[in-house]
Amino acid sequence: MSEAIEQALAEIKFDTAGLVPAIAQQHDTGEILMVAWMNRDAVRVTLEEGRACYWSRSRRKLWRKGETSNQAQLLKEFRLDCDGDTVLLLVDQEGVACHTGRRNCFFRAWRASGWVEIARPLVSPDALYGEKT
Amino acid sequence: MSEAIEQALAEIKFDTAGLVPAIAQQHDTGEILMVAWMNRDAVRVTLEEGRACYWSRSRRKLWRKGETSNQAQLLKEFRLDCDGDTVLLLVDQEGVACHTGRRNCFFRAWRASGWVEIARPLVSPDALYGEKT
Repeated sequence: MSEAIEQALAEIKFDTAGLVPAIAQQHDTGEILMVAWMNRDAVRVTLEEGRACYWSRSRRKLWRKGETSNQAQLLKEFRLDCDGDTVLLLVDQEGVACHTGRRNCFFRAWRASGWVEIARPLVSPDALYGEKT
Repeated sequence: MSEAIEQALAEIKFDTAGLVPAIAQQHDTGEILMVAWMNRDAVRVTLEEGRACYWSRSRRKLWRKGETSNQAQLLKEFRLDCDGDTVLLLVDQEGVACHTGRRNCFFRAWRASGWVEIARPLVSPDALYGEKT
């Protein structure tokens, strides 16, 4: 398993910061849930554990999606594009993907007059991350 | 129109190189076609002309998708994610999206034993870009 993962990693072209963009797509509906970033360790964890793990650029640490929100992404398939610098995760999203409580992160659409919100939160961020007491 | 576009641009967080990743998704099937990069001018051209225009990092110039291959992407909707650093283009792809002649760029899937190709070219790259004579 780990040898195959190292082979998988060898085909991925990480940028100068050691990262690749990763798209998470709901496997059965095609909905694009979010885009995050992965380093080599995030790819290893994702393939080993069968759930999405990203690299948080703001917190500078591995981020197992759902570790604080319980909104995990179970991995169905892991794909790589033609030039090897973007990965696509087909996942089964538990609950919502977006930290705003929306199902996916792409809830702003451009119209002739500007951006409009096309989706509403399904849960409150407080319910996702716990109210601080 | 151009004033609205400048407002649209104001919400997009370009990285230190002045770029954002852009996902192209087939609007009616949900298929993820490709990921490329946009700078501010590429966003302007895309919104003004109603077809996808990217920034080619290798050629360092604007790249109207299909300008040499005729495989244009007609823009159906332009979306922005929650933190403003990734854009999603819902498009109608003419022909194939990938320079290899495949319908989309994500034709490698990881299996326990390594990467496998899950799609074949529909046209030859020579037919797309013309044979050099």
